[in-house]
Amino acid sequence: MNSASDVVAIDLGGTNALIALVDADYGVGGRVKIPTDPDAGPDVVVDRIAEAVQGLVSDSGGAAVSAVGIGAPGPLDPESGVVAFAPNLGWHNVPLKEMLETRLSIPVFVGNDVNVGTLGEHRLGAGKGVSDLVGVFVGTGIGGGVITGGALHGGFNDSAGEVGHMVVKRGGPRCGCGNRGCWEAMASRTAINRRLMKARENGVPSSLWDGADKPTARIKSKALRRALAAGDELVTREMKRCARYLGIGAANLINLLSPEMIIFGGGVVEAMEDWLMPQICSTAEDYSLEHSMQSVQIVAAKLGDDAGILGCAVMARDRASAGSA
Amino acid sequence: MNSASDVVAIDLGGTNALIALVDADYGVGGRVKIPTDPDAGPDVVVDRIAEAVQGLVSDSGGAAVSAVGIGAPGPLDPESGVVAFAPNLGWHNVPLKEMLETRLSIPVFVGNDVNVGTLGEHRLGAGKGVSDLVGVFVGTGIGGGVITGGALHGGFNDSAGEVGHMVVKRGGPRCGCGNRGCWEAMASRTAINRRLMKARENGVPSSLWDGADKPTARIKSKALRRALAAGDELVTREMKRCARYLGIGAANLINLLSPEMIIFGGGVVEAMEDWLMPQICSTAEDYSLEHSMQSVQIVAAKLGDDAGILGCAVMARDRASAGSA
Repeated sequence: MNSASDVVAIDLGGTNALIALVDADYGVGGRVKIPTDPDAGPDVVVDRIAEAVQGLVSDSGGAAVSAVGIGAPGPLDPESGVVAFAPNLGWHNVPLKEMLETRLSIPVFVGNDVNVGTLGEHRLGAGKGVSDLVGVFVGTGIGGGVITGGALHGGFNDSAGEVGHMVVKRGGPRCGCGNRGCWEAMASRTAINRRLMKARENGVPSSLWDGADKPTARIKSKALRRALAAGDELVTREMKRCARYLGIGAANLINLLSPEMIIFGGGVVEAMEDWLMPQICSTAEDYSLEHSMQSVQIVAAKLGDDAGILGCAVMARDRASAGSA
Repeated sequence: MNSASDVVAIDLGGTNALIALVDADYGVGGRVKIPTDPDAGPDVVVDRIAEAVQGLVSDSGGAAVSAVGIGAPGPLDPESGVVAFAPNLGWHNVPLKEMLETRLSIPVFVGNDVNVGTLGEHRLGAGKGVSDLVGVFVGTGIGGGVITGGALHGGFNDSAGEVGHMVVKRGGPRCGCGNRGCWEAMASRTAINRRLMKARENGVPSSLWDGADKPTARIKSKALRRALAAGDELVTREMKRCARYLGIGAANLINLLSPEMIIFGGGVVEAMEDWLMPQICSTAEDYSLEHSMQSVQIVAAKLGDDAGILGCAVMARDRASAGSA
């Protein structure tokens, strides 16, 4: 390992930040997870991240770090490194790059978290060697990234890949963005939960609310997996619906962009991959044009939680060597 | 005009083929429209096109033509020039490039008609100087093309831009492709006609069926424009609905791809541009993410019917000079 080319990768979420030291072969030398605590404000959050980075470097015996890559939620400007808007963090126009560079004195490169996750899967995960793909991450929301010609496609406003806000059911349920019938409002864990809670109000039986724990409005992916494995009728029906919408959205992406691959990741997919993927593929086949679907692969992500940090490492290394500021 | 660098551009449709001689400054030196008559089979169609090309060249005083660009409907392979499937022409796997090269002894370059139309608008029309845009052509169907980084994005199966088959209303009306709720099934002239005919069956009054002519199931864009201008309530309602769906689809494209511009063309838009465009823009603004929508232009196409032939000329010139076979 050439420690001179280590990079620090930071996957910044609304709850936690995952920070890792990544070597030139994309091996993770050390990692730490710290609470983000967004209520403390951006300065405190960035202070803590900087401290954790310094701790990680010091623990490694003082690795020479050439760059920092950070994936942040929400739309942002990759050049200036300003996060325009991150509702989970309560951030508006936070100059993340500048703030972190001031504290660390190392070049910092900022990217959108799901874009960066897609980049990770593209370069080191399910999409290795594939030059046109779309990454879709299904969790609380649905986010993604678009790779064309082997590179992340940012587009005019550097915001390509907002797949979750593609309307697939006009007039459907309200989405977090304020509109109705977005993909995210139909197939994310939030959408699944909304329908499960409604079913519960209507007295529909389910193993989800048979246990000792009081059911909450936030049923986790693992609980869904257990109920599915146990043959729970309600959960099976709702997950079939989710799979169908995921397949329709995948077909939309295939018809629009003619990618070679669609990668599905995120908590919902990870938890129920074997059950979900064949159904997603079959619906996507039904809804995509025959010619566009030829030899297209629809696959599960491979890197799990590491897609974010590994993507950050790829981004930091690429942009540092390209001399991008 | 340097006649040595003239190209022949052919916009091949199910009813007519528009054939033009285009000079190096994209001036149209001569043009002819011939009926396609698809029932006669591909050999006869290509024979007629070849004859028309020769006639056009001869009429011009024997211009030296360096390349032929042809835009054909349906999915195709731009390299081999084989049209995979063109329902309007009844074609399956027709080797158009080879057939035309055999007859003309000039290099022939084949592209999808709406992709090529988008290329025309990008290089010579509404999208001049814009490197990331999506072209959307609304007529009997809805087709389009995607320009990223200043070039036509074909994708893995060279079929990117099939915007018409993006599902925007799951469970909606049946589309020509067999699925339900595609953009084309909600906002094309076919969709408008379907709803108008249904209204007529239900006894809804309209100036469309007040005239002497017997109303048919194929109401043309110009008739819609006249009815709209006359304040026809039914047509106004249906066109508002169409505009709303066009705006939602535009927002989907903006959220997915972050283009700088969306160009709307085709018969429906051309006929009612001044009325439609402000409504499309306003809905797109409602449905797109604020950051992605910043400074995005949603505009009408500028080249009208010439988008196809001018795009073919651009394609022929680009690919001939790139040495693509």
